[in-house]
Amino acid sequence: MNILFIMYDQLRFDYLGCAGHPHLETPHFDSVAARGVRFTNAYVQSPICGASRMSTYTGRYVSSHGASWNNVPLRVGEWTMGDHLRAAGMECWLIGKTHMKADAKGMARLGLKPDSVIGARQAECGFDVWTRDDGLWAEGPDGFYDSGRSPYNAYLRDKGYPSQNPWADFANAGVDADGDIASGWMFANADKPANIREEDSETPWLTQEAIAFMEQASGPWCAHLSYIKPHWPYIVPAPYHEMFGPDHVPPAVRDEVEREDPHPVYGAYMGNKIAAAFQQDEVRNKVIPAYMGLIKQCDDQLGVLLKYLEDTGQMEDTMIVLTSDHGDYLGDHWLGEKDLFHEQSVKVPLIVYDPRTEADATRGTTCDALVEAIDLAPTFVETAGGEVPDHILEGRSLLPFLHGQRPDWREVAISEFDFSGTPQAVKLGLAPKDCRLFMVFDGRYKMMHAEGGFRPMLFDLQEDPQEFHDLAKGTAHAEIIDRLYDQLAAWGRRCAQRITRSDAEIIAGRGGSLRKGILPFLVDGSEVPGELTSAYRGPAKARYDT
Amino acid sequence: MNILFIMYDQLRFDYLGCAGHPHLETPHFDSVAARGVRFTNAYVQSPICGASRMSTYTGRYVSSHGASWNNVPLRVGEWTMGDHLRAAGMECWLIGKTHMKADAKGMARLGLKPDSVIGARQAECGFDVWTRDDGLWAEGPDGFYDSGRSPYNAYLRDKGYPSQNPWADFANAGVDADGDIASGWMFANADKPANIREEDSETPWLTQEAIAFMEQASGPWCAHLSYIKPHWPYIVPAPYHEMFGPDHVPPAVRDEVEREDPHPVYGAYMGNKIAAAFQQDEVRNKVIPAYMGLIKQCDDQLGVLLKYLEDTGQMEDTMIVLTSDHGDYLGDHWLGEKDLFHEQSVKVPLIVYDPRTEADATRGTTCDALVEAIDLAPTFVETAGGEVPDHILEGRSLLPFLHGQRPDWREVAISEFDFSGTPQAVKLGLAPKDCRLFMVFDGRYKMMHAEGGFRPMLFDLQEDPQEFHDLAKGTAHAEIIDRLYDQLAAWGRRCAQRITRSDAEIIAGRGGSLRKGILPFLVDGSEVPGELTSAYRGPAKARYDT
Repeated sequence: MNILFIMYDQLRFDYLGCAGHPHLETPHFDSVAARGVRFTNAYVQSPICGASRMSTYTGRYVSSHGASWNNVPLRVGEWTMGDHLRAAGMECWLIGKTHMKADAKGMARLGLKPDSVIGARQAECGFDVWTRDDGLWAEGPDGFYDSGRSPYNAYLRDKGYPSQNPWADFANAGVDADGDIASGWMFANADKPANIREEDSETPWLTQEAIAFMEQASGPWCAHLSYIKPHWPYIVPAPYHEMFGPDHVPPAVRDEVEREDPHPVYGAYMGNKIAAAFQQDEVRNKVIPAYMGLIKQCDDQLGVLLKYLEDTGQMEDTMIVLTSDHGDYLGDHWLGEKDLFHEQSVKVPLIVYDPRTEADATRGTTCDALVEAIDLAPTFVETAGGEVPDHILEGRSLLPFLHGQRPDWREVAISEFDFSGTPQAVKLGLAPKDCRLFMVFDGRYKMMHAEGGFRPMLFDLQEDPQEFHDLAKGTAHAEIIDRLYDQLAAWGRRCAQRITRSDAEIIAGRGGSLRKGILPFLVDGSEVPGELTSAYRGPAKARYDT
Repeated sequence: MNILFIMYDQLRFDYLGCAGHPHLETPHFDSVAARGVRFTNAYVQSPICGASRMSTYTGRYVSSHGASWNNVPLRVGEWTMGDHLRAAGMECWLIGKTHMKADAKGMARLGLKPDSVIGARQAECGFDVWTRDDGLWAEGPDGFYDSGRSPYNAYLRDKGYPSQNPWADFANAGVDADGDIASGWMFANADKPANIREEDSETPWLTQEAIAFMEQASGPWCAHLSYIKPHWPYIVPAPYHEMFGPDHVPPAVRDEVEREDPHPVYGAYMGNKIAAAFQQDEVRNKVIPAYMGLIKQCDDQLGVLLKYLEDTGQMEDTMIVLTSDHGDYLGDHWLGEKDLFHEQSVKVPLIVYDPRTEADATRGTTCDALVEAIDLAPTFVETAGGEVPDHILEGRSLLPFLHGQRPDWREVAISEFDFSGTPQAVKLGLAPKDCRLFMVFDGRYKMMHAEGGFRPMLFDLQEDPQEFHDLAKGTAHAEIIDRLYDQLAAWGRRCAQRITRSDAEIIAGRGGSLRKGILPFLVDGSEVPGELTSAYRGPAKARYDT
């Protein structure tokens, strides 16, 4: 069996037809959901690209792998999905984005060269690279945000787009009435068509790359097809730019009560530039239709992939996984971007199609178990026929759910966020180690703990599914808060770093030192069978004590 | 400046003259204490050799580095004292024991060969090796406990001791009345002299090695002189075997109340073979005099070292640090060995002599701050003139205390113990991940938390300095227990794995993405200076959208 593991960047859980969006039809996503299971409570381990992906790819919580924000390098030696899958006999390839930053200092210390196979896998988060493009070829006075090379820019230049950075000048820009670049960075331009042939834009390009990969692959393989979109810049080529308009924009999910004495961290975020932009209806009315257009294009390209799998007879031996690395506030809760723990940000779509007959009973169903993105790595390892190394992987395989079982499951989902690198850290006057947020969600109550001496936030999603009323402002929910803190504390004590010895090895090793002569309890040797002490008996070989 | 960092294995904090032992005189330890500071509340991060040392050498808590028990490999890539000191321009050499187990699987994955410089440092916990000998050449039906080579055994064979394993047959054995080997493993033999010339026994051998190292070293260096003794086997050569007798054995610190409804983990330990042996007065009366003799020998050998430093003029530029990796119950609390968190096990001696004039004001004083063994690595880095990488090192430099300051300091000391590999795990029926204990000690109250659903233990060392009365049996101390659990929880959330980016780098990087063109908040570009958006302005290069 192969695994087509598709991630969309910044795709909200509720912007799919099958998830109930009122205006956005996504027949191809829906068709995978109809063949598989849609998880309705899937949470990422950090609502930001880099940290979220490092958790998904390592199967470990952010505090366990340490790459807690974009471009914080993943420490050399962390085991990843690719390592575990290769050990189980399955290749693991990357087509698209990872946001992986190599631990150059750690690699240099160990003498690892980035151009060796080992070094390249360390630098590429354990993937073998078919195509790596993180899709953020931004440029400013200090140069490029991404110092790597862009295969996508090379592709566009080959196609004749006359620019050193056609990503910025064509794929993510329109043209204004004066014939000037209408950059996709400016929300005012989000309703313009991107100045690129649709088939050359990022999403079709990665679809082509994925098909080219599959054309030559012999398997078993896991292909991580990691789309750059619908992540900003919010601009989409024709005809997608005009499929949706202000009439299709849902009202912002926000309430004045949220601005009354907000939690200081939430307050700081509500006051940032992104929030200020998304608090304007004009911005939402331009950006959200573009965002929907980008998703619609993703859905169409998913259709291309599904047709390819059908046409080549691969639907029967390919697991398909559709998910995201985090959501997008889009003005909900007075916020833009992601970062905090409201559902719009931390919940992701997760649809898994398992072609095996064991999964027949669950096709077209939903599952509301508290699922974490770190569950994917063990799911894939088990699918590959490997044994899940649960002394390293902190998630749990989802195969039981796919196969109609309801295993004992975690009581809380955990997510984390490190804002030490942001303006909010400055505004709040916090030391980097105090700029850390933790979400504990038990399926009903969602608590945010903030380091730095702040009170928590608490929402009751049963009574207040829109998360407007912060119950931690009063004292009425002290018991629930205490309980969630206890659950966070238990998580904090988890055994996350004993990665060099499995539980099975520990159990098998018990008593081993006894049989290797370690006997620090003997009064005279009569306590144990003679064979254990035979090395210490017999005539002395000489006397040296005089 | 150089650093002579001496560790004695299994040396109790209170078996020194300067610490008030009634019968054991240790003039050389005392003389270092008289020139330096003796820390009276120094705690190891795990009361067992391997885990404790990995914390001391990495400057990180056990749950942070993951090598939670003897022979659990330290994951490849962990930074150690040696890495940090070399970066600060100081060599870091090993003479003796580390109990380091290399992460062979992790090294193989990264292509690191144990015989390369990089590979050897990875395999040797960051030290360059002058002599490595862990001093446990035990042998049983399944072979040797330690599969390495023993320089000490080679030394003894060179000296003519006729055995393949003279460590076992001579250094750690006497001869009985019948001329047979009287193994040091049997406590009944602890009063016999070891069948070896005193100058050939382990402690003088390592002293010679240390002097040989210093003879040729040019510095600046840190030498970790890591003695194997007074760790068991409890047997010592003449004349040390007869310096102490039953009259010098303090009464066991134990009380019947401890056996009434004990905490299940404590109860399991009280019922193990080692405890059963040490509950016998005959055992204590033989073993403790041998233990004291071993310490007396260590003290004499410390005298040799001090004389060498004096004679070579090195006392003025050598910091001397004397400590241990854990204690030894010796029958106190009905226990033998170490493992749990009573003072006899988890508290260690720690004496630091700093030759610099800044330390003149504190010479001969004691310091009762809650010090952890992980504080040594940052102390050494600062002594070497380096900047303490506090995104990796979790301890804090002790130099302020040595220089007469009283900095704001930690509120609790933490220690951990993993008994998943022991018979107690079997007896209690626990899964490996539940065999984990945590100590939280605030200087007065000491709590032990045990995973696996047990109640905690609590002692008030002010009212009950001998730790007989477990206050967690009742409900009277619920508030204190809650508070200690809160402190443990805060520790559990610590930022331990963000080791690839320092706080200074985080602060310096703020706003960096803005200047590299990441601007996901622009409505029309007027929000920021034009230079930030100049890459996205100007005439479009061509039109492709039709």
